[in-house]
Amino acid sequence: MTYCVAIKLKAGLVFLSDSRTNAGVDQISTFRKMMVYEKTDDRFMVLLSAGNLSIAQSVREILQTQVLRDEAPHDGSSSGLTIWNATSMFDAARVLGCAVRHIHKRDGAALRAANVDFNVSLIFGGQIKGEGMRLFLVYSAGNFIEATDETPFFQIGESKYGKPVLDRVVHPDIPLDEAAKCALVSMDSTLKSNLSVGLPLDLVVYDANSFRGDKMVCIDHTNAYFRMMHEQWGIKLREVFDSLPDPVWNGGTTDTPLVSQDGTYPPMTKIQSPEDRVI
Amino acid sequence: MTYCVAIKLKAGLVFLSDSRTNAGVDQISTFRKMMVYEKTDDRFMVLLSAGNLSIAQSVREILQTQVLRDEAPHDGSSSGLTIWNATSMFDAARVLGCAVRHIHKRDGAALRAANVDFNVSLIFGGQIKGEGMRLFLVYSAGNFIEATDETPFFQIGESKYGKPVLDRVVHPDIPLDEAAKCALVSMDSTLKSNLSVGLPLDLVVYDANSFRGDKMVCIDHTNAYFRMMHEQWGIKLREVFDSLPDPVWNGGTTDTPLVSQDGTYPPMTKIQSPEDRVI
Repeated sequence: MTYCVAIKLKAGLVFLSDSRTNAGVDQISTFRKMMVYEKTDDRFMVLLSAGNLSIAQSVREILQTQVLRDEAPHDGSSSGLTIWNATSMFDAARVLGCAVRHIHKRDGAALRAANVDFNVSLIFGGQIKGEGMRLFLVYSAGNFIEATDETPFFQIGESKYGKPVLDRVVHPDIPLDEAAKCALVSMDSTLKSNLSVGLPLDLVVYDANSFRGDKMVCIDHTNAYFRMMHEQWGIKLREVFDSLPDPVWNGGTTDTPLVSQDGTYPPMTKIQSPEDRVI
Repeated sequence: MTYCVAIKLKAGLVFLSDSRTNAGVDQISTFRKMMVYEKTDDRFMVLLSAGNLSIAQSVREILQTQVLRDEAPHDGSSSGLTIWNATSMFDAARVLGCAVRHIHKRDGAALRAANVDFNVSLIFGGQIKGEGMRLFLVYSAGNFIEATDETPFFQIGESKYGKPVLDRVVHPDIPLDEAAKCALVSMDSTLKSNLSVGLPLDLVVYDANSFRGDKMVCIDHTNAYFRMMHEQWGIKLREVFDSLPDPVWNGGTTDTPLVSQDGTYPPMTKIQSPEDRVI
């Protein structure tokens, strides 16, 4: 399994991925799920991948090296469209979608014959000079959706454990480093609850309009910041939990009793033993 | 969808369930997922259900009313085994497993013909006089596993959002009301991140060796304790998040820098634009 998250803010973009790949629980490997594509001062793009590793690697290979001539640029020029000449992230995402369809055409039937789903999901985001930053979620059919101010983050892979903290913290106005911290907390919860997600992590923080990747780090268990965050989050979360009063049943003296059975809804059905029933 | 959680402690048992049922997102109903079976001073049992509602309701119906004559008690007596005469929770769980198989026999083929999975999962726990408390997770094949000191809680339904806090807090020695609080926090995270889980909640807290259910409450949005917990947890979680330092990149002055690119692992692959490559 995998966990990847990407966040789009006014200040920039945050990308975070784990690196565990497993087939069953006894075949665990480390594969990096992040690729960075940079043409300094012109474009900066990041690809995160989850799903079948062979599909994801093939898609990445094609995206790096192949000109996709079946997709003409929107501007009508005759040369094939690539992620290097696309004039918008939308077109670059179309190239990626096309690469996914290319691999589906090549491998889909054979995978189906082996009862393997054509399962891949990709997060692709960045900025090309001339437009703002954009962030896309690309599905295994090659179609995609784009992040908006209302939905400023995407997750792929084992996404549920780490979603609550993102739901609580992320909105487009928070600073970049705060979003990076939030992504790391989200990853930490996922690492704690799911064995199929593992270190090291790849983190990229992109400053809007910089068109270069200066903030890129691989985080393993020796990383001082991640260790601090992991320990402090655990300790302080526990302190918050302890600071909340326990529920008190009827007769308690707290202001917030867990009042029983006189609310709007009836109490749950209690079935009495047959011989206790009065006929 | 559904979210149910049950926790087994030395001090007793905690059961919590939501009440949302949906078929797609435009057909949402309220169905309670908790049933309490009590023979005062003799046995107290709680059943939580997730999965296909028609299967769960059928299983509950059978469990309440039908003697399962195909399962003889372990003690060799000739009368059929029921949840009311079972001398152990293990036997009661066998009755439940048998009820699931009964419904599978009755409905399985027709469901399969309609391309509907025979999908049900059940948590069943309680105490029968003469033995300690026990807690079981019953699968759709009628087989089951039992909670232990190492794994003192079970979840069914939409379980992932609410698992991290259980992983951090629950162990068999914590007090009952603290475990109830933990279950409610777990439910709160799930409610926040998944539309298919909804109020009201059913909560039962069972004191070990009491053989009766005095602490049973239905919690809706007017419940003072749940509102307090929901608000305070959100506020304080945010305070903890804010109290952790943001990551600092090279050149920062904190003790815990997010050091870049000189760790054990190489940085992620960065692909340069083709024309930037030096041949």
